[in-house]
Amino acid sequence: VNVDGRPFRSIWLADDGVTVDIIDQRLLPYEFEISNLSTLYDACVAIRDMAVRGAPLIGATAAYGVYLAMREDAADDALAHACSALLETRPTAVNLRWALDRMRGAIGALPAARRAAAALAEANAIAGEDVAVNRAIGEHGLELIRGIAQRKKAGEAVNILTHCNAGWLATVDWGTATAPIYLAHDAGIPVHVWVDETRPRNQGALTAWELGHHGVPHSYIVDNAGGHLMQQGKVDLCLVGSDRTLRNGDVCNKIGTYLKALAAQDNDVPFYVCLPSSTIDWQPDPGGIPIEERAAREIERIAGRLDERRVADVGVTPSGTPVANPAFDVTPARLVTGLVTERGIFAAREDALAAAFPELA
Amino acid sequence: VNVDGRPFRSIWLADDGVTVDIIDQRLLPYEFEISNLSTLYDACVAIRDMAVRGAPLIGATAAYGVYLAMREDAADDALAHACSALLETRPTAVNLRWALDRMRGAIGALPAARRAAAALAEANAIAGEDVAVNRAIGEHGLELIRGIAQRKKAGEAVNILTHCNAGWLATVDWGTATAPIYLAHDAGIPVHVWVDETRPRNQGALTAWELGHHGVPHSYIVDNAGGHLMQQGKVDLCLVGSDRTLRNGDVCNKIGTYLKALAAQDNDVPFYVCLPSSTIDWQPDPGGIPIEERAAREIERIAGRLDERRVADVGVTPSGTPVANPAFDVTPARLVTGLVTERGIFAAREDALAAAFPELA
Repeated sequence: VNVDGRPFRSIWLADDGVTVDIIDQRLLPYEFEISNLSTLYDACVAIRDMAVRGAPLIGATAAYGVYLAMREDAADDALAHACSALLETRPTAVNLRWALDRMRGAIGALPAARRAAAALAEANAIAGEDVAVNRAIGEHGLELIRGIAQRKKAGEAVNILTHCNAGWLATVDWGTATAPIYLAHDAGIPVHVWVDETRPRNQGALTAWELGHHGVPHSYIVDNAGGHLMQQGKVDLCLVGSDRTLRNGDVCNKIGTYLKALAAQDNDVPFYVCLPSSTIDWQPDPGGIPIEERAAREIERIAGRLDERRVADVGVTPSGTPVANPAFDVTPARLVTGLVTERGIFAAREDALAAAFPELA
Repeated sequence: VNVDGRPFRSIWLADDGVTVDIIDQRLLPYEFEISNLSTLYDACVAIRDMAVRGAPLIGATAAYGVYLAMREDAADDALAHACSALLETRPTAVNLRWALDRMRGAIGALPAARRAAAALAEANAIAGEDVAVNRAIGEHGLELIRGIAQRKKAGEAVNILTHCNAGWLATVDWGTATAPIYLAHDAGIPVHVWVDETRPRNQGALTAWELGHHGVPHSYIVDNAGGHLMQQGKVDLCLVGSDRTLRNGDVCNKIGTYLKALAAQDNDVPFYVCLPSSTIDWQPDPGGIPIEERAAREIERIAGRLDERRVADVGVTPSGTPVANPAFDVTPARLVTGLVTERGIFAAREDALAAAFPELA
């Protein structure tokens, strides 16, 4: 996806051919700055301090982190140390463990002298596969947008509502919910995106930043507004991501997704969830999804640009006010029009998912 | 309602017996400061600069403003000037015009020498009637809360979700949606309130401030969280206010109300709207309620406490991001369990409202 006309990924091999560059996402949406990772330590700090975020990107960064560690020292204990140091940066990130297991599998049996090159190749493969999966999600979702566009007058934009940032910044490229949007825009289909602010962490600002820099028309709205816009006929399609999808089609995603799904159903707006199959939880009966309760401070204080030079945060609750901060909700499968995956679009039902992914089900 | 144990209204005759005191709401929820109005000019500034806000309180302040003007000069042209100056402070506020018409009716025919005293009496009557209406709403709503409490284990709190600030700060006392809550708390019924932040203007902070200073247990949540809490069985009752209710029972209220009503229906949570009958629009067919589109700046910048001494606002959208800011939405009558008015609780239907308010219908 482009930033002001120049194509970018969220992580890439630097021009020197040996170190790794990332976009420092802590400064977004206020400043666009590229940061260089040349050591294991750099990679650990980037993940821990959330210079990179989003499950797929965290996984890719950890993979490159193993490669950077092997450049410094490719002995067995250095490999073990690198994996445990990277794993500790974000202990709950499932993708982190997956990427490290895969790196260990790819290079663990090799002689030390060949590990760095093999690690780079494997990290590149992990990143490349993420791009391919998201691109495939995008191509399937593109057909949904094309179908709506064909029922509109020529030149009339397809209005798409999205929640949170399921964008290219959270992946290596394309994003999940945004992939169909970028492909539609690039194909010349007029689109306009309603971007939910997504309190408390305001990830909508990242989505707006992405869309703006790629040139996709959009409007930033508060989370309260989407239902009204659907009532007014101003939303043709909802596209959201998913942190975890159950085999029965229930979708766990950023808090507030459920409210938008209810409004979509009430107004006959199609509601699609875009997800790589790697985020499907195939457990027979997970017995309810535990919902992370995050720090009160995320709600109590809001960060933003104070003036030209400074970013600061301000307290928005009365002092001493108790706060509750559930971070995700579960949208029941009955509210989901379909699941857009890298293999196609499927009903949010166990039989449909199992037929599409027989090797995983 | 109390502030730290001492009963307060939002406007009252000052201790000197001639001027008027208000709570300067621009400083809330960070500072509690009383401000004195001694002239027409003071009253105009208080309304225009939103030191007072909320339709009923704006009306009462305008009424006291006429009284203050008559103290200075009670001639016919001074009365005309006072009314036009006050009307211009918030041109779209329906209650402002209503209060000024009533004041003119009460004192216009009197000799100048008697106008100030009569104006004070009429302003006191307007304020007193607002208190009585809200208190009556509270007493009817109290029975809903009592009914839920009786079905719970002893000591278990009734969980009530509210949106925006339909609190005593927006009225002269009690508030609309908060009146049942204060009366229940004062009656010893354990209640706990989920306070929606209510982006973009974060009026939830005012509600949290009110509840906290009166001693009512509550938790501040982002607008995205309410649906999830209802799914988890953590909400027993929704109570919201209304800016305008149509004769068919459709409710126009702060943006986002509709989303909570959908979630309430999906989870069998009773959803009640608390309103004085003065906000019912009896027009046979208003042909759709026009929804105010407010300034982008309300969304782009968020005010809060920067440090111990300073309140500041920060920009939270990427520079140049387009913003849409619809301020209200319409909750269809089918989602409303009942309307809590000063005369009792009625179905959100034309026949029920007309039977309850035959002289208005």
